[in-house]
Amino acid sequence: MIPGLMQPKALQIIDILKFAATAHGGVEIVSRLIEEPMIRLTYRDALNRAERAAKALQRLGVKSGDRVATLAWNTHRHFELFYAAPGLGAVLNTVNPRLFDEQIEYILNHAEAEVLLFDKSFLALVERLRPGMRTVKTFVMLSEKSTHEAGAISALCYEDLLAAEDDGFAWPSIDENAGAMLCYTSGTTGDPKGVLYSHRGIVLHAMASGLNSAFGFDAFDVVMPCSSLFHASAWGLPFAAPINGCKLVMPCDRMDGASLQELIVNEGVTFSGGVPTIWTMYLAHLKQTGETPGKLQRVVIGGSAVPRAMAETFKKDYGVRVLQIWGMTETAPLGVIATPTPALAALGEEKLDEAIWTRQGRLQFGIELKIVGDDGAEAPHDGETSGALMVRGPWTIQRYYRGEKDVADADGWFDTGDIATLDAFGYMRITDRKKDVIKSGGEWISSIDLENVAVACPGVRIAAVVGVPHPKWEERPILVLETHAGANVSENDVRAYLAPRIVKWWTPDAILFDTIPLTATGKINKKVLRQRYADQLMR
Amino acid sequence: MIPGLMQPKALQIIDILKFAATAHGGVEIVSRLIEEPMIRLTYRDALNRAERAAKALQRLGVKSGDRVATLAWNTHRHFELFYAAPGLGAVLNTVNPRLFDEQIEYILNHAEAEVLLFDKSFLALVERLRPGMRTVKTFVMLSEKSTHEAGAISALCYEDLLAAEDDGFAWPSIDENAGAMLCYTSGTTGDPKGVLYSHRGIVLHAMASGLNSAFGFDAFDVVMPCSSLFHASAWGLPFAAPINGCKLVMPCDRMDGASLQELIVNEGVTFSGGVPTIWTMYLAHLKQTGETPGKLQRVVIGGSAVPRAMAETFKKDYGVRVLQIWGMTETAPLGVIATPTPALAALGEEKLDEAIWTRQGRLQFGIELKIVGDDGAEAPHDGETSGALMVRGPWTIQRYYRGEKDVADADGWFDTGDIATLDAFGYMRITDRKKDVIKSGGEWISSIDLENVAVACPGVRIAAVVGVPHPKWEERPILVLETHAGANVSENDVRAYLAPRIVKWWTPDAILFDTIPLTATGKINKKVLRQRYADQLMR
Repeated sequence: MIPGLMQPKALQIIDILKFAATAHGGVEIVSRLIEEPMIRLTYRDALNRAERAAKALQRLGVKSGDRVATLAWNTHRHFELFYAAPGLGAVLNTVNPRLFDEQIEYILNHAEAEVLLFDKSFLALVERLRPGMRTVKTFVMLSEKSTHEAGAISALCYEDLLAAEDDGFAWPSIDENAGAMLCYTSGTTGDPKGVLYSHRGIVLHAMASGLNSAFGFDAFDVVMPCSSLFHASAWGLPFAAPINGCKLVMPCDRMDGASLQELIVNEGVTFSGGVPTIWTMYLAHLKQTGETPGKLQRVVIGGSAVPRAMAETFKKDYGVRVLQIWGMTETAPLGVIATPTPALAALGEEKLDEAIWTRQGRLQFGIELKIVGDDGAEAPHDGETSGALMVRGPWTIQRYYRGEKDVADADGWFDTGDIATLDAFGYMRITDRKKDVIKSGGEWISSIDLENVAVACPGVRIAAVVGVPHPKWEERPILVLETHAGANVSENDVRAYLAPRIVKWWTPDAILFDTIPLTATGKINKKVLRQRYADQLMR
Repeated sequence: MIPGLMQPKALQIIDILKFAATAHGGVEIVSRLIEEPMIRLTYRDALNRAERAAKALQRLGVKSGDRVATLAWNTHRHFELFYAAPGLGAVLNTVNPRLFDEQIEYILNHAEAEVLLFDKSFLALVERLRPGMRTVKTFVMLSEKSTHEAGAISALCYEDLLAAEDDGFAWPSIDENAGAMLCYTSGTTGDPKGVLYSHRGIVLHAMASGLNSAFGFDAFDVVMPCSSLFHASAWGLPFAAPINGCKLVMPCDRMDGASLQELIVNEGVTFSGGVPTIWTMYLAHLKQTGETPGKLQRVVIGGSAVPRAMAETFKKDYGVRVLQIWGMTETAPLGVIATPTPALAALGEEKLDEAIWTRQGRLQFGIELKIVGDDGAEAPHDGETSGALMVRGPWTIQRYYRGEKDVADADGWFDTGDIATLDAFGYMRITDRKKDVIKSGGEWISSIDLENVAVACPGVRIAAVVGVPHPKWEERPILVLETHAGANVSENDVRAYLAPRIVKWWTPDAILFDTIPLTATGKINKKVLRQRYADQLMR
């Protein structure tokens, strides 16, 4: 090879905000806040505030490479810290406040942050965990003077810190492979594991996710991230939106139907995304009030399977397109997203909807997928053959933070722990988590396929299928259901609903009504269910 | 800083075609050819052919780092060579066959290619230039057996070479900063200069140019590049289209109105782009036949200013949106493109159209622009203050091929040689080439602004303004006009048209009707005009 002669310009996160401030300087960021009125600023203001925040962090002793932790909601302050800390060469560790105390403590000690910035709603949490924090020396409340409270931890006031700095900042030049954001993922077993995103990975992800194959942003979009900024950077929306000049609406912690509707209508939100639970509440609000969702066009839903009824209601009653997304903290998080293609559209609207609503999404440039069978061979793209889902690319994990060995194999493939199929249209469908697969008499049953059918049964709110020990078949599926308030659903109703929709030997051996336990990230906690019903079929 | 822990996956051109073959494997490439019937293949086929082409090139002795030259039109064969050669680690040198013989000879000798692939229409050219080619040893005609002709240079037959290879190729892993494509730019003075694109630059450019701020591609688009593949890679369309799963239509050398219309209608072209001349012919064809442009939605026009009447006709008569683009070989080529923003749209449709049609375009993520005055200070974004246009970014040139020093300054800024303004909406407008600026009595006159007004005068086909020596004012503008065939335009008509549209002291001192000389890349050759009329105002 001979070296190319283009400029050796590094991909840096701060260049995203600089670009938005220059090209879309007057575009707004609207943010709710804890105990403060809603605030309205521009990308130009946001860059100015990020400059001040960077200087304030430096004054608190933050140096290049240091970790800076947050326990914070979706606000403009959290947004500007996404730029200020990485812009300094530091790493922003966005801690999930919904985790158990011991997990939060573990993360803070593992990441070794010395500065922790937090929203006022977490004051009690921070005070409670203070004794166990081994490295945090400085606490900053993301507040202004009028609402500030120093608490038992002598927290500093964020807006005072910013006000003490002057305009402008000479952002250092940073290696694009430097760590920028640190997000911990928590399974149901073991300690949380840190994924350390690089500047390069985040910028490439932000570019790719704005394409029409994914979020399809343009300058007329108004984007409201309802997935949490502490959860894989809210799908990278705080980076993809400014690149495309989109107005940003930050809902803080208020994800109830009425609060979202107020922002959607008043701010002209065109695009939002989050876990299904939020949209269940939102649709209930619309139904109750008879209101309509303003200019809302697209709702991207991830985290767990989209109930079909939800997608249909959005489309048929309100003209809003629901797109599934699949990804994980380890993929920054974009893996696939269910946008249409002409090949699929040619099959007719019904088949298109079916695919969009039942598959996790289609292949995206920048992240390779392959399905590998038990024999290690790559499975065909036939939509039938399932196997371990492996991913590869510049925004896919190589190794966990402070891990001792790579989690990507020698060819760069990372095993997601999901079981999936890929079809001829390039659409991927998750059939199970590897650990949730049910093996009945040597045959596999997909817990997710069963759940997807059951959750569409009228009256059902959440459906969970787990495999439990069985004297004859080794393992058999049981179905646990949580119903909508006021719904009257019997076991026979469910059996009648399932019968024509599944093969007979997949019929759950028990159908139970119970409260379904969720993990800290809002997913069904199957480990707890398996323990709770371990003896169900052995009695 | 601490190193991030994402995968160190290099950005490689071949991954674009691999992606298209996997995610959009059935999407078509339709191509006209010289003396052969139209061909229809898929991205899956194209990858297979690129694999064979890579093996064939290796068999001809091409090694990593070698240059491979082409003299070729917009065909599927040229397209697959865009992947085969860089995929090997070699560099594809796309030579512009419209240059003068001595320039083509200079380029081939300067690039030192040993293999030259050419379309049959260039056989005589290649035979004629053969004696002066110091490094080319192997000639390959991009033909199939039935139309092949070895000529005096014993050309090999491309399709025979491909047929001799078998399926599959183990693409080597390539440093993303390696050279991949070599395009020469030819001004009106001096030898052509080579711009050596890297894999990284091309992939980033392809990702950014698919965004809605630029081409806004989606999988439903059918893209027909009418700018030449040898001219800054046809704006990178051969890379941006496959990333977005777009069907590709290759018009070969047939840019006349009827030929384009056939493809536009039969293939469902939604997006095309090229220099204004092509679209003048196309609109004339539509007018003459009363036909309509099928599914065509967007026409991107670059190379020279878009005549307003053309943009209006496209919009009002056919509902097609015209977007200006500005860039240069040195920027791969995307600089700016004139897509709308809400801030501009808020001013009303008329003002929006005015901006879209008279400005070159708006700021894009990945390429920074600044305007610098004579004093070296950055000019405000006021839409008024003009100065030298400087650009910077990962797909901007650092140094010309075999150049002895960088052409980007220490901070990475490359002086484009254009004089421009930037406005508060983030739109850039070229007011002149630095060397074409007219300095009259110490004040600047924009030759481009004057041309833009004059070209809108009924009957005018091309308008050129140059400054020539003047006894009193040092330099004064003269206007040279080429009219449409059959149009009857007098000097007085033009004076009457200009009077209410320009400030009085900008009025050209002479208005002349003449044939306008063009450069090999289709631009007005002002150097020739300045020489031709050097004495015009001194007599």
